[in-house]
Amino acid sequence: MTMSASIAVNGIGTIGKRVARAIQHQPDMELAGIADVAATGELRTVAQDGPLQDAPLYGATEEGMETLRNAGFDVAGSLEGVLDDVHLVVDATPKGVDEQNKQELYQPNDVKAIFQGGAANDIAPVKFNANANYDAARGEDAVKVVSCNTTSLARLMDALDSSIGVDRATASLVRRGGDPKQDGRGPINSVIPVHDVPSHHAPDVQEVMPGLDITTIAVKVPTTLAHVHMVNVDLASDVDRDTVIDLFHDTPRVELFSDDDGYGSAARVIERMRDLERPRYDTHAAGIWEETVAVEEGTLYWVNMVHQESIVTPDNIDAARAMLDLADQDESIERTDRSLA
Amino acid sequence: MTMSASIAVNGIGTIGKRVARAIQHQPDMELAGIADVAATGELRTVAQDGPLQDAPLYGATEEGMETLRNAGFDVAGSLEGVLDDVHLVVDATPKGVDEQNKQELYQPNDVKAIFQGGAANDIAPVKFNANANYDAARGEDAVKVVSCNTTSLARLMDALDSSIGVDRATASLVRRGGDPKQDGRGPINSVIPVHDVPSHHAPDVQEVMPGLDITTIAVKVPTTLAHVHMVNVDLASDVDRDTVIDLFHDTPRVELFSDDDGYGSAARVIERMRDLERPRYDTHAAGIWEETVAVEEGTLYWVNMVHQESIVTPDNIDAARAMLDLADQDESIERTDRSLA
Repeated sequence: MTMSASIAVNGIGTIGKRVARAIQHQPDMELAGIADVAATGELRTVAQDGPLQDAPLYGATEEGMETLRNAGFDVAGSLEGVLDDVHLVVDATPKGVDEQNKQELYQPNDVKAIFQGGAANDIAPVKFNANANYDAARGEDAVKVVSCNTTSLARLMDALDSSIGVDRATASLVRRGGDPKQDGRGPINSVIPVHDVPSHHAPDVQEVMPGLDITTIAVKVPTTLAHVHMVNVDLASDVDRDTVIDLFHDTPRVELFSDDDGYGSAARVIERMRDLERPRYDTHAAGIWEETVAVEEGTLYWVNMVHQESIVTPDNIDAARAMLDLADQDESIERTDRSLA
Repeated sequence: MTMSASIAVNGIGTIGKRVARAIQHQPDMELAGIADVAATGELRTVAQDGPLQDAPLYGATEEGMETLRNAGFDVAGSLEGVLDDVHLVVDATPKGVDEQNKQELYQPNDVKAIFQGGAANDIAPVKFNANANYDAARGEDAVKVVSCNTTSLARLMDALDSSIGVDRATASLVRRGGDPKQDGRGPINSVIPVHDVPSHHAPDVQEVMPGLDITTIAVKVPTTLAHVHMVNVDLASDVDRDTVIDLFHDTPRVELFSDDDGYGSAARVIERMRDLERPRYDTHAAGIWEETVAVEEGTLYWVNMVHQESIVTPDNIDAARAMLDLADQDESIERTDRSLA
């Protein structure tokens, strides 16, 4: 592996800023630059004062370039102007903008692109999760990394389905109302059910794992730290709790947390990440509370958390490796996880 | 029906103050008095200034009587002194105190007693829900009304099991962190899984509905208004969504709320109760969000809310009627609901 892939990130928000930073940590990748259109506080922080200040900053549009320059940013040019030197763009722009970027920027310039979970499903032929279907992205030009909740479900369902077999799964999602920075969102004191049963998460998982029998129900609650899933799975084989615990333990990007160790809530797991001095207290793993894992008459139950801001970061990195044929699945996952530990 | 049952309430907290008030509304019951041991703010409000100011106030213990008198309450005497004239006591005291009351107060004085969901299961031979097992309490001396979450589950499962049949049920409970008055409780910004799967709610439902195959998983979240349940039920017969909607519609103490009508969250349902000028904005019904009701391949899904402070109020009233043989199930439920509407 001597090729160093040149990758740009378009859209420096919750996902984009994390993926850009993760690219900087990969031995086989180079951050070609970051692009945006708006002089947000987070762009100012990461691009002017923070960890991305050495990366070239581009205007994602001509107008965006002017906006950033007028706001005092040091802008190297337009994103389009450097696409010839870029192997791949990670697009983390809002829904709708991503589609426009694909049609007006990436396809005409023949550059590969990764899109995020918020994008329309038809933006890319492959919906991606590194654990579940890495090979489906090999050599592809456009890939969509599925959303945070779907990523957690795909990781865990793939582990179970590959080694034990899943007859049927139901996940009840307790979604965080907003991210920490989203101070305009609610609820403050309410619980909001999502109308549709199944919620969009079940069909999204099935985009990655066709044929998986899964249903999802969801509510939104007043918390910012994490989503929480309560899951029940009818298993295809008769296994005991210890077998499942061992399986989860051995699955990449799945972590077990025990209340006995002091990690018995979303806030306590996050406090662990802060104490480990993880950047932004990110935790890329689907975090399962060990005490909640139970098997009863062939049905497996557990409760797990999903750090909504960061769980898809490693999958973006692996998607790039698959699309650029830089490594096989196990090697990519291992390389990514080592770089982000 | 000419007999008027004389009923006292011991423990004027969240449940006791509501049941005492509900007793005042029953044509066939008389509130013999209320009893407590501590000069709390809520006792001061309801007993001195509020709707229970005409009910005699008793000290639940000799020491409690002194405490209340020293705090300026007008105390009529000790609870024990009037038990000869009382047919039944609704005990809404804390766990442990209830058991002591049973042994030292109710049994020696040969007075019937109703206990609450927080009590130990062996405090009474019958665990009660008015919809599910009214007749089990007929003539009994001690009955435990199950807790708020269990009451909702028992109502809904009984409706389904009686008319469609339940093969298996799983309920994922999103529990409110604390009641509005419990300002010492959390979490503020976290989600706390309950260790045990099943949580205590499933076996509690089975105390009322033996043989029901049900599992419960639970988390606590930062909200005060209501519990929320995400439920999936394998049905024994093949029915469509409309059949289930009709069934829920026809079930006492189950109410359907639609987002189309503007009631698409816990807070919006509560706002409706405030606008209807319901006392304390109580809603005794298990509130199902209509849009979430779905049937897929023989499995029924829905999301419902449980007003944790008030849902057991009518069941306490019906338990009293059953124990005192004042009415049969349908008559009691109808009478209670009319009085509380």
